Amino acid sequence: MKPSTKGLRSHCPVNFALEAVLGDRWSVLILRDIVFRAKRTYGEFLKSEEGFATNILASRLVQLVESGILRRDPHETDGRKDVYSLTEKGLDLIPVLFEMMLWSHKHDPDSLAKRIEPLVELIRADNRAISERTKQQVREGDAIVRHYLS
Amino acid sequence: MKPSTKGLRSHCPVNFALEAVLGDRWSVLILRDIVFRAKRTYGEFLKSEEGFATNILASRLVQLVESGILRRDPHETDGRKDVYSLTEKGLDLIPVLFEMMLWSHKHDPDSLAKRIEPLVELIRADNRAISERTKQQVREGDAIVRHYLS
Repeated sequence: MKPSTKGLRSHCPVNFALEAVLGDRWSVLILRDIVFRAKRTYGEFLKSEEGFATNILASRLVQLVESGILRRDPHETDGRKDVYSLTEKGLDLIPVLFEMMLWSHKHDPDSLAKRIEPLVELIRADNRAISERTKQQVREGDAIVRHYLS
Repeated sequence: MKPSTKGLRSHCPVNFALEAVLGDRWSVLILRDIVFRAKRTYGEFLKSEEGFATNILASRLVQLVESGILRRDPHETDGRKDVYSLTEKGLDLIPVLFEMMLWSHKHDPDSLAKRIEPLVELIRADNRAISERTKQQVREGDAIVRHYLS
């Protein structure tokens, strides 16, 4: 199902978040790339190891801008490129991504989250506090993970 | 994309949670129905307002059992029915659902979460604590939301 807030099936809060963005895995991977890896262009997203199809990536970027999760701006120096960044509405999804990380850390024996134990601990202790710090880092174009890689 | 842990595309913790369960909106709605509405049979899930197609519902129930999120048991009195419940691995997804709820509460003006403000406040203050209480209620077959409806 493509993310959309038009023709919403219900205002159940779980369903709303799914229809807006979270029910589409490729959309969530774009958010992941921005928050954890400081990616910001189509070409950078395309290199993700999960393997975006070009048409899916392009359509999701359009939808995420339309639904107010991403903002699209022209690249500072390369006029052929667009730069994508999270809006405040998009940044507010960081605590959800962090809870997903805790779940995978617990249930995937090979989780890459085990390489960032200090961050996992911070999220477990106070997701809200570390999310606010992360939002500020992402606003500044930084990637949270590199500060915690062991 | 159907949820599966076979052929995992990466052990990134966000991707793992997406591939295991969260990247499929119908799977998440089944979890929602169990946690918030104490549903437990195919017939009960089928009545959800978002409108499950019968084949999708059936396939997702099979997958969620296979991936260890749900347990299937025979109904106590009606041998034709199965009863689905969350495993501990499935119960561990409750904090993720709660963060989704907070996001929708903030960004959907018509969110039904506005009818359960006391619960929203508890999640905002300490997701981990209220999630543990909720897990216990869900294990006992109770539905958290009815305790907070204003």
